[in-house]
Amino acid sequence: MRMYDLIQKKKRGEVLTDAEIAFFVDGYAGGMIPDYQASALCMAIWFRGMTAAETTALTLAMRDSGKVLCFDGIDGVRVDKHSTGGVGDKTSLIVAPIVASLGLKVAKMSGRGLGHTGGTVDKLESFTGFRTELSLSEFERIVNEHGLAIVGQSGELAPADKLLYALRDVTATVDSMPLIASSIMSKKLAADDDCIVLDVKCGSGAFMKTVDESIELAEMMVEIGKRAGKRMAAMVTDMDSPLGLTIGNALEVEEAIETLRGNGPSDLTELCTALAVQMLVLAEKGDAAFCASEVARVIQSGEALERLARMVAAQGGDRAMVDDPKRLPHAQELCVVTAPCSGYIASVDAEGYGIAALLLGAGRNTKEDVIDMTAGIRLHAKTGDYVAAGEPIATLYSADATRFGVAKEKLLESTVFGASAPEKRPLILKIIQ
Amino acid sequence: MRMYDLIQKKKRGEVLTDAEIAFFVDGYAGGMIPDYQASALCMAIWFRGMTAAETTALTLAMRDSGKVLCFDGIDGVRVDKHSTGGVGDKTSLIVAPIVASLGLKVAKMSGRGLGHTGGTVDKLESFTGFRTELSLSEFERIVNEHGLAIVGQSGELAPADKLLYALRDVTATVDSMPLIASSIMSKKLAADDDCIVLDVKCGSGAFMKTVDESIELAEMMVEIGKRAGKRMAAMVTDMDSPLGLTIGNALEVEEAIETLRGNGPSDLTELCTALAVQMLVLAEKGDAAFCASEVARVIQSGEALERLARMVAAQGGDRAMVDDPKRLPHAQELCVVTAPCSGYIASVDAEGYGIAALLLGAGRNTKEDVIDMTAGIRLHAKTGDYVAAGEPIATLYSADATRFGVAKEKLLESTVFGASAPEKRPLILKIIQ
Repeated sequence: MRMYDLIQKKKRGEVLTDAEIAFFVDGYAGGMIPDYQASALCMAIWFRGMTAAETTALTLAMRDSGKVLCFDGIDGVRVDKHSTGGVGDKTSLIVAPIVASLGLKVAKMSGRGLGHTGGTVDKLESFTGFRTELSLSEFERIVNEHGLAIVGQSGELAPADKLLYALRDVTATVDSMPLIASSIMSKKLAADDDCIVLDVKCGSGAFMKTVDESIELAEMMVEIGKRAGKRMAAMVTDMDSPLGLTIGNALEVEEAIETLRGNGPSDLTELCTALAVQMLVLAEKGDAAFCASEVARVIQSGEALERLARMVAAQGGDRAMVDDPKRLPHAQELCVVTAPCSGYIASVDAEGYGIAALLLGAGRNTKEDVIDMTAGIRLHAKTGDYVAAGEPIATLYSADATRFGVAKEKLLESTVFGASAPEKRPLILKIIQ
Repeated sequence: MRMYDLIQKKKRGEVLTDAEIAFFVDGYAGGMIPDYQASALCMAIWFRGMTAAETTALTLAMRDSGKVLCFDGIDGVRVDKHSTGGVGDKTSLIVAPIVASLGLKVAKMSGRGLGHTGGTVDKLESFTGFRTELSLSEFERIVNEHGLAIVGQSGELAPADKLLYALRDVTATVDSMPLIASSIMSKKLAADDDCIVLDVKCGSGAFMKTVDESIELAEMMVEIGKRAGKRMAAMVTDMDSPLGLTIGNALEVEEAIETLRGNGPSDLTELCTALAVQMLVLAEKGDAAFCASEVARVIQSGEALERLARMVAAQGGDRAMVDDPKRLPHAQELCVVTAPCSGYIASVDAEGYGIAALLLGAGRNTKEDVIDMTAGIRLHAKTGDYVAAGEPIATLYSADATRFGVAKEKLLESTVFGASAPEKRPLILKIIQ
């Protein structure tokens, strides 16, 4: 088999076999296939696309390039939820405790934030002492005992994907649907879950800007997962506005706790409920209506919140911070941003809001940056709200007051005011099963 | 300027500016742009194509990556003829002396053969003592004195093209029309000619298999040349059959001499006359009819043949071999191939014939191979001829009789016999001016 022939085939629009795709992935990860041939193939894939069978083969070959986990030691149905990344997205902190309290097992590996999107592992480090690295036996024990555990994603998973992504990043081939889908799924499938619910974000704060491309990606990933023997569902959800009212690590943890107490913002509560219901339905806990009532019940009863507290404690964190969120780290400095004019918030650029939070210290520009856990934004008004000139629209938090200037500027330039209320877009745009 | 943005632009179908193309070529030739970005761009060009302005900019940037010659020391109108490469193509050996004897100046740089196609420089080395490397002053002096000189193409011309071609060769991006056109023209434009006539070969023995793609390539190269200030013409000519009746270096030289004596095969004579007429018309020596009569005259009078003899002598070769071609090197061994059945030769695979000659020792598989100047094929029957079973269709020549088996097999499998005469395709398929 020659890499040249694979490039030629794909260039001409022919379909690569499973063996050919495995030859490419193994050869590239093993250093036998040079970057210049891999990038030519990626560009040909950008133009020609891949069939579901090809995309699945690519996903599985990349999964198999590294460690593939086995959670045989965990009893019960293992479920996961994965978001493609948004601004203010703290759903994992809410959904995992909810479904754990209803008997599902969530053995979750999460990423760290980069750029304008946050990461669950970063947020969890708001809890003093919380450990995001656990041994496999410890991980399994905590999941068995408390129903959930969340650790950082190991670098050992799908190393071929890591290599290929780095190459795509410098050759303008990141935005290829089958390459995106296989990249995400190669890591998801390296974990040993029975059911996976995908939350594909769509809009100004997401990688996918249009509903059509979000649906395409969601359908592709569901298909890959099913072909790999998983029970799959996906939701395409709005990311034109940040989710909830907070952006930034400790701020989002506090909001997650409030939501688990039943006091969360409506959009966040709605999405978390919907995601939890999808997970429960996939795990055959009942129909959607029954599962929704169960979700409401465990929020109401405090069982879901208790699960979060138990997980935090089991992973070495300070559970008193769950019981009393005032104990979470708080910023030394704050700055209120007011509306420059009266009117409706017609639209916001959610990515711009994410970047404003990043500028405050809540995120990383490069992998080496250190996060200010207290930094971030609390929104007082969202898309569709009317504000009078001089009314507060957001409060900025940071350990470093010199950062407020640029962040405020970014936030305001990302906010469009208008004379009339914009048409409301539903939060959940499509469910794929 | 970032290479990433250039790839992105081309991928999206946008047009690159002259400055962007120069940035790419200079950066790649200078080692600042890595192979993997260059190959991604080439693949994007394969899919999106290039405008005439982009292709010209690429051509000129590659030309300017190396030495650009100046033939100011040569008096008169400098003309060149370039073939895209075929089997049995010895036209340069015939056309250059013809137009030189009619007052044009041919300061020609030619390539060596690789694979199934031959090279003029190799053929000329059939003449004992012939030197294919001359100093610039010697080259100019011979052209001024005798009207023509032919040397090997310098490696210093268009080095960026050489690098890029090597990359395209391993990334399945050779067969891109603008990349082919710019590659050929970058080297042609590095020479200092006033007029260029292109012979774009089309058919089973050529790189371009269809008439449409041959015309597209011819038009693209003519456009590039005109934009670079040259007087241009191109002919698309048939290469479904080998040209003339011989394939192989000394055999082709002998046939060229016979053609300059007026005794050449009709297809070769027709094509050489047409090419010479194009060159003369471009050089404003008169209209096509007048130039054709002039070509016939200098063949008839022996003036054209005398020019070849003078050039051979001036470049250190044995002119007695021109005057008496029996002195050319001849093979020690021969093998007659006979028709396995009676019938018409319905078609031949000209590339297969080229490979058969290669197998006899007439060509190179790799750049390092040494050529057997005496090896090759003399055809006794061509497409459209009727042969009875057992009649000779070709004679094979080689210094090494053990090569006859595979070459004969290749020749026969490249020959299709049929019950009726095939439709005749014209030799000259299109003229572009």
